Amino acid sequence: MTEVGIDAIEIWTGKLKLDLPNTFAPAKDEDPEKYTKGLGLESSSFPDVHEDIVTMGANAAKRLMERRGLELDDIGRIDVATESSFDNSKPVSTYIAGCLEQRFEGNLHHANKGERKFACVAGTQSIDDAYNWIKAGRHRGRSALVVATDTALYARGDPGEATQGAGAVAMLISEDPDVAALSTEQGYGSADETDFLKPNQQFPSVDGKRSMQVYLARMREALEDFESVAGDTHPDDFAYIPFHTPFPGMVRRAGLLGYRHMIRDTEIEDELAGEIGRQPREEEFDSWEAYEGAIREYMDDLKETDAYRDWYGRVIDPTLTIARNVGNWYTGSVHVARASALKNAAETGRKLSGEKLLVGSYGSGAQAEIHAETVQDGWKDEISDLNVDEQLARRHDIEYEEYEEIHDVHNHDKGIDIDSFTQPSGEFVFDGWGDMNQRKYSYVE
Amino acid sequence: MTEVGIDAIEIWTGKLKLDLPNTFAPAKDEDPEKYTKGLGLESSSFPDVHEDIVTMGANAAKRLMERRGLELDDIGRIDVATESSFDNSKPVSTYIAGCLEQRFEGNLHHANKGERKFACVAGTQSIDDAYNWIKAGRHRGRSALVVATDTALYARGDPGEATQGAGAVAMLISEDPDVAALSTEQGYGSADETDFLKPNQQFPSVDGKRSMQVYLARMREALEDFESVAGDTHPDDFAYIPFHTPFPGMVRRAGLLGYRHMIRDTEIEDELAGEIGRQPREEEFDSWEAYEGAIREYMDDLKETDAYRDWYGRVIDPTLTIARNVGNWYTGSVHVARASALKNAAETGRKLSGEKLLVGSYGSGAQAEIHAETVQDGWKDEISDLNVDEQLARRHDIEYEEYEEIHDVHNHDKGIDIDSFTQPSGEFVFDGWGDMNQRKYSYVE
Repeated sequence: MTEVGIDAIEIWTGKLKLDLPNTFAPAKDEDPEKYTKGLGLESSSFPDVHEDIVTMGANAAKRLMERRGLELDDIGRIDVATESSFDNSKPVSTYIAGCLEQRFEGNLHHANKGERKFACVAGTQSIDDAYNWIKAGRHRGRSALVVATDTALYARGDPGEATQGAGAVAMLISEDPDVAALSTEQGYGSADETDFLKPNQQFPSVDGKRSMQVYLARMREALEDFESVAGDTHPDDFAYIPFHTPFPGMVRRAGLLGYRHMIRDTEIEDELAGEIGRQPREEEFDSWEAYEGAIREYMDDLKETDAYRDWYGRVIDPTLTIARNVGNWYTGSVHVARASALKNAAETGRKLSGEKLLVGSYGSGAQAEIHAETVQDGWKDEISDLNVDEQLARRHDIEYEEYEEIHDVHNHDKGIDIDSFTQPSGEFVFDGWGDMNQRKYSYVE
Repeated sequence: MTEVGIDAIEIWTGKLKLDLPNTFAPAKDEDPEKYTKGLGLESSSFPDVHEDIVTMGANAAKRLMERRGLELDDIGRIDVATESSFDNSKPVSTYIAGCLEQRFEGNLHHANKGERKFACVAGTQSIDDAYNWIKAGRHRGRSALVVATDTALYARGDPGEATQGAGAVAMLISEDPDVAALSTEQGYGSADETDFLKPNQQFPSVDGKRSMQVYLARMREALEDFESVAGDTHPDDFAYIPFHTPFPGMVRRAGLLGYRHMIRDTEIEDELAGEIGRQPREEEFDSWEAYEGAIREYMDDLKETDAYRDWYGRVIDPTLTIARNVGNWYTGSVHVARASALKNAAETGRKLSGEKLLVGSYGSGAQAEIHAETVQDGWKDEISDLNVDEQLARRHDIEYEEYEEIHDVHNHDKGIDIDSFTQPSGEFVFDGWGDMNQRKYSYVE
């Protein structure tokens, strides 16, 4: 059967940069290593005054379409995943379609537009919807445009403030994709949790400790569910494992947990037994607490082994390069991680066609989704066309006082009006409000 | 290939009733016929104090599951469609899953949960997602639970106030469905419109006149797109045509427009030519305005013909019976219209297996979607199990002052706390706020 998956990827970062060790830490009177070592973050992206989730998504989509020579008639569906929506009825995809119709011939009147919300996992859910739509034979030869776009802001002073970020990832989902074919198999770990939520509020209420526990618990559940349909996983099965990355430190924990799970009852566990013993088995313990304690000890030892360090360095660490410099993009985060991995492979001359990725998506509230992807022959050409490094280098580096201002610009309850920090050029921009309080957009040559 | 579609339907109305001609009209000092004749509405449903989109959705889902003897393991996916969400990150489907897990054995941890938003069209989009998921072979033999749930409130004094309503429709989407198989073919008419929107606000901003024009324009576009893949439609092709029903008066217009479109170049146009002439053709007119004027005149005449009145009475009017007594349920509305039609067929002893429905969904912002459905053999048993008439009869009839109170209860900016009007029994209820400002739910025996 025809493969379906990611045919093209484009990344658009917010145009402002907040330097965490050099600007944020001193202003907070904190040790820079709290951010660089603890969270694993160097800087965050923020939208400039003329930017928002619509402009970032539309600019990513436009660049993708131009690079691939696409016309509007080639697009049968536009799905936007976001948890930063500014309208309770009209979906962001209609605004993005309106932008694209300003710049391309024809229209998108026969394209199905949608919007999905489930914290950070909705981007992957939208890819899955597009895959299913094509597999169901309803696409009439067209592709789907999936846009994961978010402005991840916390209340000022919230512990999550350092993990903010903003940007969009546009992905083209097609038959015979150039980048990665998705597995039919999916694994889910999902429960009604209140780790992170935004009840009628723009900024999240977060139980930080609980949120990390839930991430790991749901991810393990999803991996077990995935294995129940796809068979056992092994660390050597996957070239890279991109995870949802709220901050790189979270992925360090997920990577270790995943490795521990995957090596159980394999030759790797046997080989490591002389060094750190075998993994504790639940049946050997009188209580769950004792078992959990033993597992934690084993994981502490496992983390220090050469086998794990080597694997982590090859399979996980390359997924974090972009995240370190942009922060959390919510729905786009796991897709940034995939792009980061593929970029690493291209830059190091690694041959990747036919290799597999395991993709671990997560949304608070809470749900993890695990699926596999097979890298396709066209991956390198597509990834080499990304200009994310240039975009990151071009960002305007803001002072702390400017950060305070831009936070207020994007705070729906404040929405202060100041001049842009950067001069827009060749991009869609937010252009003020219409008479029904709607946000308006135009294109700046 | 296996048919996929609607296997079961359940409807749950808000437990309060506002009588439009007898309570609302006198309080507004207006002619009751403005509501009964103009809008086509008798009464609206409202949620009681202990009800909201979660309880209505969960109660509909629970009744559906119990009627069909389903277990949680039978459900592989819960998609909620709503434009009344109260959290910008955590989806309503997780709350509904949490409710169901309180009452059924096992859990829904391996079920994919989601939330879609696109005004009133997201319910149909969620059905389509479920159909595609099954057709893509990712369902592992399980069904999808789709819940369209909304509390449609307008600001007090808004012209839309009379069209309010609240309720949920739960639908089970399965292989070999009992009620209706969905067509692979779909037609879309979609544009970036600002007819109705809720920019960071609970209650809509509406351009009423524009909204009706956009509904009709997008619906026509969707029908033409549907015909481009499914072939021309004819009025006799369909036993019923359920439309999205913001109020029955809107569907009267849509029905007439659809009939005019479908009879063009058919024997029906020929037969009517002696009575009202042939339809104006655009090429016969010097200007678009002149053509539009002639079309309007033709439609005015067409509306009075026996052929149209008979067709409307058979194919459209039976879809409106429930809507007249509940108002607009937003995402649930078109699914209430389908249920209304099937109920009519069951009550009049009509044989319907193998007959076709044409379903016209719509969401402001704006998008229409048209697809066909083929009624399946089990439809009558399933529809006969609906207790919607009892539910409607049991509603507590509120006075105008009570209406003002309940509007404030559900107004997020007010959220006043008063006693329920009805005594909950055998249902999920809203149970106050948790320590992260989350809404909590329990079951009342």
